Amino acid sequence: MEVRGARLGVIRQRLAEAGADAAVLSFLPDVRWAVGFSGSNGLLVVRPDAAHFVTDGRYDTQARQEVESAEVHVPGYDLAKYVREAGLLGGAARVLVQGDHVTLSTLEYWADLFESVAFVPVKEWLVDAVAAKEAWEVERIRRAQSITDEVFTALLPLVTPGVREQELAAEIVYQHLQRGCERMAFEPIVAAGPRSSLPHAHPTGEAFRSGDVIVIDMGGVVDGYASDMTRTLALGEPEAEAKRVYQVVLDAQHAALDVVAAGRTGKEVDAAARTVIHAAGYGEFFSHGLGHGVGIQTHEWPRLSYHVEHVLPENAAVTIEPGVYLPERFGVRIEDLIIVQAGGHENLTASSKALLVL
Amino acid sequence: MEVRGARLGVIRQRLAEAGADAAVLSFLPDVRWAVGFSGSNGLLVVRPDAAHFVTDGRYDTQARQEVESAEVHVPGYDLAKYVREAGLLGGAARVLVQGDHVTLSTLEYWADLFESVAFVPVKEWLVDAVAAKEAWEVERIRRAQSITDEVFTALLPLVTPGVREQELAAEIVYQHLQRGCERMAFEPIVAAGPRSSLPHAHPTGEAFRSGDVIVIDMGGVVDGYASDMTRTLALGEPEAEAKRVYQVVLDAQHAALDVVAAGRTGKEVDAAARTVIHAAGYGEFFSHGLGHGVGIQTHEWPRLSYHVEHVLPENAAVTIEPGVYLPERFGVRIEDLIIVQAGGHENLTASSKALLVL
Repeated sequence: MEVRGARLGVIRQRLAEAGADAAVLSFLPDVRWAVGFSGSNGLLVVRPDAAHFVTDGRYDTQARQEVESAEVHVPGYDLAKYVREAGLLGGAARVLVQGDHVTLSTLEYWADLFESVAFVPVKEWLVDAVAAKEAWEVERIRRAQSITDEVFTALLPLVTPGVREQELAAEIVYQHLQRGCERMAFEPIVAAGPRSSLPHAHPTGEAFRSGDVIVIDMGGVVDGYASDMTRTLALGEPEAEAKRVYQVVLDAQHAALDVVAAGRTGKEVDAAARTVIHAAGYGEFFSHGLGHGVGIQTHEWPRLSYHVEHVLPENAAVTIEPGVYLPERFGVRIEDLIIVQAGGHENLTASSKALLVL
Repeated sequence: MEVRGARLGVIRQRLAEAGADAAVLSFLPDVRWAVGFSGSNGLLVVRPDAAHFVTDGRYDTQARQEVESAEVHVPGYDLAKYVREAGLLGGAARVLVQGDHVTLSTLEYWADLFESVAFVPVKEWLVDAVAAKEAWEVERIRRAQSITDEVFTALLPLVTPGVREQELAAEIVYQHLQRGCERMAFEPIVAAGPRSSLPHAHPTGEAFRSGDVIVIDMGGVVDGYASDMTRTLALGEPEAEAKRVYQVVLDAQHAALDVVAAGRTGKEVDAAARTVIHAAGYGEFFSHGLGHGVGIQTHEWPRLSYHVEHVLPENAAVTIEPGVYLPERFGVRIEDLIIVQAGGHENLTASSKALLVL
């Protein structure tokens, strides 16, 4: 069961801590987190003693069905102007806004509309609260990841010489939607042979060839929550170094899974994997961070990276996805989606990580 | 052939007009427009006598393949820090930034890094230039729209009682990808019966029933450019008012197509359609604007709406999509994608607009 009422409590507590009279949430994934609205336009005004959700006419019925714990308003025009005319920020002097999402143009507009209000941008606001998933959210992510696991199994017979990357990508999308995903979490990556060395390759019209290393990165969305998984396959016996790199990446992933736990920093977990890859001589070819949070957004806080010191909260859903990419030769990435727990983790990903030679 | 060099010329002319030393483009669709980069992270620095594109290690190979007319830099870390360390804004005092896209947090970070620079946010910068498509861009949009037309024809035999909205949506995606789209322009809308009255309905697990009015809104992407089309069908003989509303919406669309031309405002064209719908007594049920620009983004400038006075440039690709939505009963929307021309338009959409009763 979804229980979002407590979330407005979190927002109100942070209002009080910041000495603010109100918050305007405009970043839609956070609005969804707070009150459940899944549409593409809306503002949530949270006051100590009230909460108002404002959207446009396209979402009239939908907002009234979805929104919990806030009064729904559907003006026929500009949402911010309506906030002023309906007095939803009446008497407020200091109003928090989402600095990571509000644009310069939007703030300028709001400042013109509400002359007596001081808007205070807050960075990384709520990200820790959003990251710590409740049981019903974990359940949705689990269902999404389980569909991705099923799709992976269903795909294997289709990975044969002559099939084009784009064909397999179309099949990945179709299979996710047929199995109950409402949409893809992101455009699937299917990258074979030298293209597998591009971490973010788009599927091309090129056909699979015997000897190819193939990276498949995919995820779907169930009830608003994303999955994310990568597996690397070989089509026929791969070259010796590809097998060696595969084992290095798998060892690196195991090293990260061994240390990940609530209270650790993403940087520590990244370091566990990075050390293994460096020791094997491939350090310079692990060109991205180890992982990221997953939820309403496919990429959300926290990051697991050598750049940042985010502390992993209990019940965060995060990816663990080391990779090694040898330019113009091949790439290997192995990605699981896990739930961070006290003292360890639960892995939501069931697909085998033994090197599959098809 | 793509000729993007002239686009840096446009940017430089606007720099000169604004008395600025440089511009930092961070909105990726505009970066793609300017220099061709299609990845998900990058900054474009344009100076009167130089242009620099900065991205991260994931896009090293891709950026070197794609980027035209700018020097490519791939630092191993923070892009903005690199801009400072490499002196790419050296000597600049007044730097334009994209106010509609740069967040408060980003500007704060940049202001800290570049203490002697005044960053000047510009609104709706370049939108008119991006909207006026070159011939090679129209060609890509035409190919995308032509695939959407083909998919529509291929779908019709599948629209039968018992088929679920989600099944048809999965088929729409699969057919677009199989016919050469690299991804969908947006999640397809398939909304039957009372759900057709929600302009932005998500496909559900509900099955089609005889008597349903069905709205299908879909588009794919070819070489970075989107298509967008909506058709409304009837499954079996619909109720009399649905037929009447269908004719009103079609007449409204024709009225808009009759007046649309370069130099007109979107508001005038919207008014042509809105007048027809009002006269028929359904004015309050046309709850959205008439259309929007389409290109690298599925929704871009200009808007065709009673709110705004955007003047339509020659060779803009825009949708013309009036709709009438009777709550909890049915909705009708008919959407074509056209190219605005001097004195008229070219309609890129071939699918029939006669009411199909399947």
